[in-house]
Amino acid sequence: MNEFSARHAQEHIDNEMVIIEVNLDDCSGETLSYTMDRLFAAGANDVYYTSIYMKKNRPAYKLSILSDKAKQPLLEEIIFRETSSFGLRYYPVSCHRLGREFYRAETAYGEVSVKIGIYQEAPIKFSPEYEDCKKAAEQHNVPLQNVYDDAKLVAMKHYKA
Amino acid sequence: MNEFSARHAQEHIDNEMVIIEVNLDDCSGETLSYTMDRLFAAGANDVYYTSIYMKKNRPAYKLSILSDKAKQPLLEEIIFRETSSFGLRYYPVSCHRLGREFYRAETAYGEVSVKIGIYQEAPIKFSPEYEDCKKAAEQHNVPLQNVYDDAKLVAMKHYKA
Amino acid sequence: MNEFSARHAQEHIDNEMVIIEVNLDDCSGETLSYTMDRLFAAGANDVYYTSIYMKKNRPAYKLSILSDKAKQPLLEEIIFRETSSFGLRYYPVSCHRLGREFYRAETAYGEVSVKIGIYQEAPIKFSPEYEDCKKAAEQHNVPLQNVYDDAKLVAMKHYKA
Amino acid sequence: MNEFSARHAQEHIDNEMVIIEVNLDDCSGETLSYTMDRLFAAGANDVYYTSIYMKKNRPAYKLSILSDKAKQPLLEEIIFRETSSFGLRYYPVSCHRLGREFYRAETAYGEVSVKIGIYQEAPIKFSPEYEDCKKAAEQHNVPLQNVYDDAKLVAMKHYKA
Amino acid sequence: MNEFSARHAQEHIDNEMVIIEVNLDDCSGETLSYTMDRLFAAGANDVYYTSIYMKKNRPAYKLSILSDKAKQPLLEEIIFRETSSFGLRYYPVSCHRLGREFYRAETAYGEVSVKIGIYQEAPIKFSPEYEDCKKAAEQHNVPLQNVYDDAKLVAMKHYKA
Amino acid sequence: MNEFSARHAQEHIDNEMVIIEVNLDDCSGETLSYTMDRLFAAGANDVYYTSIYMKKNRPAYKLSILSDKAKQPLLEEIIFRETSSFGLRYYPVSCHRLGREFYRAETAYGEVSVKIGIYQEAPIKFSPEYEDCKKAAEQHNVPLQNVYDDAKLVAMKHYKA
Repeated sequence: MNEFSARHAQEHIDNEMVIIEVNLDDCSGETLSYTMDRLFAAGANDVYYTSIYMKKNRPAYKLSILSDKAKQPLLEEIIFRETSSFGLRYYPVSCHRLGREFYRAETAYGEVSVKIGIYQEAPIKFSPEYEDCKKAAEQHNVPLQNVYDDAKLVAMKHYKA
Repeated sequence: MNEFSARHAQEHIDNEMVIIEVNLDDCSGETLSYTMDRLFAAGANDVYYTSIYMKKNRPAYKLSILSDKAKQPLLEEIIFRETSSFGLRYYPVSCHRLGREFYRAETAYGEVSVKIGIYQEAPIKFSPEYEDCKKAAEQHNVPLQNVYDDAKLVAMKHYKA
Repeated sequence: MNEFSARHAQEHIDNEMVIIEVNLDDCSGETLSYTMDRLFAAGANDVYYTSIYMKKNRPAYKLSILSDKAKQPLLEEIIFRETSSFGLRYYPVSCHRLGREFYRAETAYGEVSVKIGIYQEAPIKFSPEYEDCKKAAEQHNVPLQNVYDDAKLVAMKHYKA
Repeated sequence: MNEFSARHAQEHIDNEMVIIEVNLDDCSGETLSYTMDRLFAAGANDVYYTSIYMKKNRPAYKLSILSDKAKQPLLEEIIFRETSSFGLRYYPVSCHRLGREFYRAETAYGEVSVKIGIYQEAPIKFSPEYEDCKKAAEQHNVPLQNVYDDAKLVAMKHYKA
Repeated sequence: MNEFSARHAQEHIDNEMVIIEVNLDDCSGETLSYTMDRLFAAGANDVYYTSIYMKKNRPAYKLSILSDKAKQPLLEEIIFRETSSFGLRYYPVSCHRLGREFYRAETAYGEVSVKIGIYQEAPIKFSPEYEDCKKAAEQHNVPLQNVYDDAKLVAMKHYKA
Repeated sequence: MNEFSARHAQEHIDNEMVIIEVNLDDCSGETLSYTMDRLFAAGANDVYYTSIYMKKNRPAYKLSILSDKAKQPLLEEIIFRETSSFGLRYYPVSCHRLGREFYRAETAYGEVSVKIGIYQEAPIKFSPEYEDCKKAAEQHNVPLQNVYDDAKLVAMKHYKA
């Protein structure tokens, strides 16, 4: 996964990012979902929709994409091919990202990977991976939240946070 | 307009109302707007959309219609013909409506109709009609809010509210 | 799939349905997504979220479930175990559902299943199945919408709609 | 606080509840916030707003109130006096509430009250009180989440959940 | 209409655009709708509202305007005169727009204009004009979607897309 | 309060502002509310949330902060410490703010402060202060809107607007 490449392991500022946006008033929910999948597959860092109010009483959605500039042409092609859009807009943004590392937490429900966020050399964020928590919750027939809480606790103890 | 027929002039409870709802994940904004127009034309008391989150990552809209029960079959036909819906749901509601009367307010920008709401015999609501305010604002080239405020003030003085 | 059992093949009114709702101001998006999956797996007819504004400046989500009454206890247990809810509410609703049948449409991109909605004996809705369209679009490297439009056209011609 | 009176200590079904709703397209955000405060002060069990799309291109909010039926007249008066509404609607709902008790958790940041939810005799929910967490977080200059996690953990250990 | 002037006929990048935004927590829905009309009339390329959560528990709307920079002063004046805003913000954006042409499609319901989007010399978008579709649907008493689908099909055949 | 310092008394353009944004899919409503309070306390000019649709069917909120650039590091620290964020983005914006002054309006319900907006030397906005209106409404047991309308009227007369 590109998201956790080497340059992402350290806390850093990335000035080569762009937000691409487009307002869509004649796409179905199925098309919106499919387009999101295509954009992630093509390397978008983040993709999300916001419900908006457009002219002529039309409920609509704004599609927003966070990407590095190098991938912009490919993402634009997907937008133009898959959605109803006749135009899009974009503007440069900077990203400040925490350093990241992963810890395998031994929980009461098995091993769960926890993503650690490093801010100014200190571990401050402990985010158990969803897919691991889900699998463990289903196997042990316990609420997802129990697995999540336990994994976070184990990781925090390890880091003495 | 059916909304201000005789039975609506007095404050009352109406127990013969129904809410009809349907979740739409594959309708365009244009279809949603057109359907709203058709439903109002067919006698719906109110029609509105709410943005919702459906399964499989699909942004969608819930269509809600407030209607008296007698008109339900006609409105259902419009829903089934115009939208992508394969099913809808409904449940009875009661409506408590204020008494209503209209006052022609002489404002600095011409005459504006003001709708008065009567609660337990007392006038408590003063709502200038949008179309009148809009016309006056455009003619006199003043902000809409100025016309609105003035019409409300004139009506309140008349009723000594 | 329970949704297309025999009793759903004909247009009908179902008076044994219920809407269950709960406001959630301290659940993460991951928990909301997981809970939706669990509720569908347990037989809910529909599950959706609505963004709401609660007291103390708290952005929150309302969870809504459409279910037949027989499954209500099982769904309530999932809500209480998985979410942060200390209470939920429910009220009876009726559902009006179109008759349904399926047609295998031969499109330029292969076979696609189309769901047909029958209203008062007449076919009025032609909804290509998303998973079929997606697979065909990816195989032929064409926009999803092209497959969808073609499948709908083929089905409509077959039914002379 | 009425919410935790004796009848709420045990898990129960309450069939004497009502949802009151009103669509507001000409109220300011300040009025909406003020009205919510008034409704809670008058005994509403819950009050929330939903953003909706009304006719004539008007962004609007739906006000929803959950209340027991005995308080409905008082709440309706507040709605009619404070908002722009000329009418409201309501329908009966049933509420299923968990049993509730409170535990004083000794955390690393001082005592924090935790609300326990009892489902079919078993404690399944552990919800630290926001105001206690906030105070402790500010005093110890730690993230709110740390206090919250710790209080929950202490309470769960006490109940061996 | 300025939107389809000569410079818009060809696919192009426009670097002279700006987004203007303002958060509004004390405007009514009527004012929001009126302001949108005024902004479009003054030459805004796009205007839309987003529901947001502001401080002090205030539901609010964000107004967003896409405009070329030359029209910014005029649009700002409308915002300051018509809304409750004491300040607004703006930032430059670039727009990538498809080439556009129009085709008169002979449908089973009469002539309907279809807007064609040209991406890298190829026609890839076929968008029937709403007003034409609406008129035809009302005249022939058929669902809007039927007219829309037919017009799109005719145009696509013409372009052999 | 920094918002009404000397440099804000005159209408002006401020080019040293920044928007900071972060998408949050695993924060509770309580954390979102607490974080907003912390950000305002640390000097943010505006803070608001928008409901968005993220991948994997996750309802989420976007946090947006308007700030001058000098305060950005402090605000980023609060975001990283209080929320679940592993990264944030930002981009420069310019702000156009009206001149501001305050007027003490003698209303039928006591003195109410009214904020006046000055656009190109002319007073065009009259915004009664919420806290004053609220206090007066509660003391005199009248709707908030009555106090608000009266204060605005008195101020407008004073300025002959």
